[in-house]
Amino acid sequence: METFNERLKSAINKKKSCLCIGLDMDPTLLNSTNLEDLKYHTRLVIDATMDLAIAFKPNFAFFERWGSAGFKWLEETVEYIGKDALTIADAKRGDIGNTALQYVESIFSHFCFDSVTLNPYMGSDSIKPFLTDPKKGVFILCKTSNPSSTEFQDLNHNKKSLYERVAEASLKLNRNKNVGLVVGATAQKELERIRSISPDLPLLIPGVGTQGGDLHQSVKIGNKNGTALINVSRGISFAGDMSKNRVRLEAKKYVEIMGNILNG
Amino acid sequence: METFNERLKSAINKKKSCLCIGLDMDPTLLNSTNLEDLKYHTRLVIDATMDLAIAFKPNFAFFERWGSAGFKWLEETVEYIGKDALTIADAKRGDIGNTALQYVESIFSHFCFDSVTLNPYMGSDSIKPFLTDPKKGVFILCKTSNPSSTEFQDLNHNKKSLYERVAEASLKLNRNKNVGLVVGATAQKELERIRSISPDLPLLIPGVGTQGGDLHQSVKIGNKNGTALINVSRGISFAGDMSKNRVRLEAKKYVEIMGNILNG
Repeated sequence: METFNERLKSAINKKKSCLCIGLDMDPTLLNSTNLEDLKYHTRLVIDATMDLAIAFKPNFAFFERWGSAGFKWLEETVEYIGKDALTIADAKRGDIGNTALQYVESIFSHFCFDSVTLNPYMGSDSIKPFLTDPKKGVFILCKTSNPSSTEFQDLNHNKKSLYERVAEASLKLNRNKNVGLVVGATAQKELERIRSISPDLPLLIPGVGTQGGDLHQSVKIGNKNGTALINVSRGISFAGDMSKNRVRLEAKKYVEIMGNILNG
Repeated sequence: METFNERLKSAINKKKSCLCIGLDMDPTLLNSTNLEDLKYHTRLVIDATMDLAIAFKPNFAFFERWGSAGFKWLEETVEYIGKDALTIADAKRGDIGNTALQYVESIFSHFCFDSVTLNPYMGSDSIKPFLTDPKKGVFILCKTSNPSSTEFQDLNHNKKSLYERVAEASLKLNRNKNVGLVVGATAQKELERIRSISPDLPLLIPGVGTQGGDLHQSVKIGNKNGTALINVSRGISFAGDMSKNRVRLEAKKYVEIMGNILNG
C-alpha cells in the first residue's frame, strides 16, 4: 500500500508536473454571486486542467460562505475531481483530540479528501488523529505567505524560530509517511532552511502569482532532495477571459516553466 | 451601539451567570447516529438552559462531519438560539486576508453568529478582517486546555512565552472592544498571567468538567477585573439520563456554584 507521500511522488513523476490548483472560487473575480455560475466555472477549471494538475485544493472558506448550499457544492466538487488527481482540503483545522476526530470523519470519510491543511498552534494532540491512515496526508502550516506571518512564526527560542520548531516536530510525526508542510513562496530564506531541516517532507507552496512569491526559487529549492507542490489559485482559475482554453493555456504555461526549472 | 465585549458584560450582569454551553453533539454520547435524534437533543439542551446560559458555542466539527446536512443543522441551530443568548462559532479559523474575508461572510453574515474563535498562528492579517463590526466579537486561542498546548504555546522568546505574546498582540487588536481570548481552565498559572497582561479582554475558558480544569479558580481569576465565560459542553448536554430536567438541573448547579464563587 502506498502512503500519501508516496502517492504524491508517484503522481508528480507520472504527470511530470508539480502543479496544485487552488479552487478559491471568488464571486468578485467571476463577477457573479449566482451559485450555479460558480459551480459551472469550478467544473470548467477542473476539466481544463485535470491532466496537468497533481492536486486540486478547494479552499473551504469560499464554499462555507454559502452555508449548507456551499457544502453541497464542495461534496459535488470532490466527487467531480474523482481519482485522477489528489485532493487537498484547505481547511487549516486545529483542535483538541475529540474534536479533531470529528474533523477526520468530516474530511477523510465524509468528503473523501486525500489530505488536509492543519494549524499547529495546539500541538501534536491536534494533529495525530489525522495521521492514522497512511494513505491520507496532512500539510502542517509552517511558514505562511502572508505579511504578518512574521509576528509569531519568526519568534526565536534558543536560536530556533517557531516555524523551525514546527518543521522539526512535523518530521517526528511523519512515521506513517503522510506529513508535509505549508511554506509560502514569499519566504525564500525560510524555504531553504525548512528544506534542510526536513528534506523528506513534501512541501505545499502557495504564494506565487498574485502574492508575489518567486516561482523559480520555489520550484528549485522545494524540489531539492524532496517533493514540492506549487499552488496557483486565481492566476489559473481566473486567467484572461476565463474560458476553458485560456485556463488550460495558463496551467500549461506553469507546468512548462516548472519542467524547465526542474530539468535546468 | 454596544460593542461585543459590552454585550457580553451586560448579558452576564443581567442573567447573573457566566455559563457558556458548548454544543458538541457527539453521536457516541447520545448513542445515536440519526441526525434527527441529534437535532432533537440540541433543541432540548437549548430549551432547558436558555435562561441560564450567557452563550451557546456550537463546535463546528460536530456539524461538519455530516457535510451539507450538518451545516443545514448548524443554520437551524443558530436560528433556534435566537437573540436571548449570544452565539460563539467554535470554528478556530485562521487564514490570509482574502480568505479570512470569506470566513467573515460565512460566520457573521450567513450563519449570523455573534462571535467566533480564531487561531493566531498566521498573525494579525488573519484576525483583523473579523474586527470591523464592533458588535461582532472574536476569541483568539491563547493558552489551550489540551496536554500538547505546551509544545509551542509555552516556548519562550526574550522571557515571554508565545501565549503571552498572543495576549499582548490581542490587546492591541482590541480597538473596537470586540476581542477576547481562549484560555484553558487546566492552565491556572497561565490564566493568572494572562489576566494580568490583558485585564480588559473577556476570557472564554473551556476545560472544566471532563478535561479536569479547576472551576473555582477559573471563575475567580477569570472574573478578577474582567469578564470570563466558563464553557461546559458534555458535562451539561449529556448529563445523567439526558432528559430536559436533568440537563437543566446540571446547568443550574453550575450557575449556582459560579454565583457563590463570585459573591464569596
